[in-house]
Amino acid sequence: MARDITILTEADLRAVVKLDLATIDTVERAFAALAGGQVIMPPILSMAIPEAHGEVDVKTAYIPGFDGFAIKVSPGFFDNPKLGIPSLNGLMILFSATTGLVDAVCLDNGYLTDIRTAAAGAVAARHMAPSVVHTAGVMGTGVQARLQIEAAHLVRPFERVLVWGRNSEAAEQAASDISATLGIEARAESDPARLVAQSQLVITTTPSKTPILMGDWLHPGLHITAMGSDQSGKNEIDPHVLAAVDAYVCDRVSQCETLGELRSAIAAGTWTRGAPPELGAVVDGSVVARKTDGDITLCDLTGTGAQDTAIATVAYAQCRAAGMGTAVRT
Amino acid sequence: MARDITILTEADLRAVVKLDLATIDTVERAFAALAGGQVIMPPILSMAIPEAHGEVDVKTAYIPGFDGFAIKVSPGFFDNPKLGIPSLNGLMILFSATTGLVDAVCLDNGYLTDIRTAAAGAVAARHMAPSVVHTAGVMGTGVQARLQIEAAHLVRPFERVLVWGRNSEAAEQAASDISATLGIEARAESDPARLVAQSQLVITTTPSKTPILMGDWLHPGLHITAMGSDQSGKNEIDPHVLAAVDAYVCDRVSQCETLGELRSAIAAGTWTRGAPPELGAVVDGSVVARKTDGDITLCDLTGTGAQDTAIATVAYAQCRAAGMGTAVRT
Repeated sequence: MARDITILTEADLRAVVKLDLATIDTVERAFAALAGGQVIMPPILSMAIPEAHGEVDVKTAYIPGFDGFAIKVSPGFFDNPKLGIPSLNGLMILFSATTGLVDAVCLDNGYLTDIRTAAAGAVAARHMAPSVVHTAGVMGTGVQARLQIEAAHLVRPFERVLVWGRNSEAAEQAASDISATLGIEARAESDPARLVAQSQLVITTTPSKTPILMGDWLHPGLHITAMGSDQSGKNEIDPHVLAAVDAYVCDRVSQCETLGELRSAIAAGTWTRGAPPELGAVVDGSVVARKTDGDITLCDLTGTGAQDTAIATVAYAQCRAAGMGTAVRT
Repeated sequence: MARDITILTEADLRAVVKLDLATIDTVERAFAALAGGQVIMPPILSMAIPEAHGEVDVKTAYIPGFDGFAIKVSPGFFDNPKLGIPSLNGLMILFSATTGLVDAVCLDNGYLTDIRTAAAGAVAARHMAPSVVHTAGVMGTGVQARLQIEAAHLVRPFERVLVWGRNSEAAEQAASDISATLGIEARAESDPARLVAQSQLVITTTPSKTPILMGDWLHPGLHITAMGSDQSGKNEIDPHVLAAVDAYVCDRVSQCETLGELRSAIAAGTWTRGAPPELGAVVDGSVVARKTDGDITLCDLTGTGAQDTAIATVAYAQCRAAGMGTAVRT
């Protein structure tokens, strides 16, 4: 039976899928479903290829109420920059949730992942940051440093951004880009402790293997979103922070235990409170993470297949409506 | 950096990739590498979607010496036939093994899986069946019944085929198709015990959940390839057979323990010999499965990601050489 599969390129997707409130709402809906227990999300398939200094992860999830489910393949090959190629790329495949047939192949080179990851940060900020944020700090200077700030600004319209990075030139550049995009003050801050002291919202976006945000930097009314750690070797947050904050929330406990900040805190013996709540429970109101504006809160994001299914389903619908993509008859 | 990804449809792949000795050799090379311990093959990612009576499996493997690695997605949605759609379909994505970039998307609807699965049967027959096979029996009447016989005939040019199926009309049809394809005698056999008694090579290709080939049907000089069981609920071979044969061989022990005939034999307590050898060890000569033409042998095939990587890499190279496929710039 001949049918058409839609091939969507990065250019198609960039033209149609935006980091806006609608996208944030879509990803929020995925988290709520995840907390409701209706989502089927198997463990991540992960394959390391040491010979090529590479790895590949596969994520998927089925969310009732979404027309499709995505399978996302994310390769990371860390010698690529020597060849002038980005380390990270990949694609998402969208399948019909009723027949399992392929609806679309999104050759997005990681664009949809960038968007759904930043959108998750905004969901965390919306439900956990203090109601008023004047200054947002970001640690890291890459794509996610920029996109996380952009996304958070949609839900907490702060007036100022501070950027810290190991490389001060990269931090200056990121600050300059953020300022141009958002039309607000943004500057590099060379002292990470000072960045945290001045910020009500801090987002960590690095691949660091040793903590970059320390426990004695915490102050009342601070929210931290840590989105850098997504592998068992990574750790951005001093393990004492998890014990010190008023509320610590995971995107998915089973992932954070092995891939996120929770892993390091369990290993260090600082986390002894049992299973933390998940972001979806905060979204659906069954858990209140921030009780007062003075609370200190932390959200640990490792990235879920549910976000991929949400973004891919919406991207496909938007591209269809816009007449984007190439049909391949198969 | 703009680059082209090749989209290959089922029609492209059917025109170029054939079930021939070259394909069998390619799949054999994957098994040898698997036995050599150089292959990286993570456990299968599997997601059941009970609401849709569906499931989806993802397999992958990295084989040194192959230019690419495949990620294969196989959905099975068992209400599809009511809609006039096949239950099984899916696709394979081929990535560069040095950069992780997508080289090709094979929208094969399961065709490459059909071919690599039949080729594995031929590898088993080549290394485990008696040197001379006059009659081959096949249990089951589907696509694999036909392809397994076609593939086995390339390595053991038998003169006669017997086909058994629960549905006698389907068995007649399969026999008629096989006879037309191979130009040899093929007929339906309504009694499975009689089929086994007359055959030197028997291939079981059904999704049965209860044994269809019994221990008291074994006879000297018989080789059985059981390729139907690839899930924990399936079982084609009487668990006593595994204990009774002179050599029992797995495609991959870790998979057969949970998905293959070995699972049922362990559960029934009939398998107590520890870890059986793998097909790759038989291929590379480190294990001799059949010591005499009178031995009784059994090969248990669950399907490996290594086969997918092998077939996808070769399919891409052949399609490039033939100028097939659609380039998408991304």
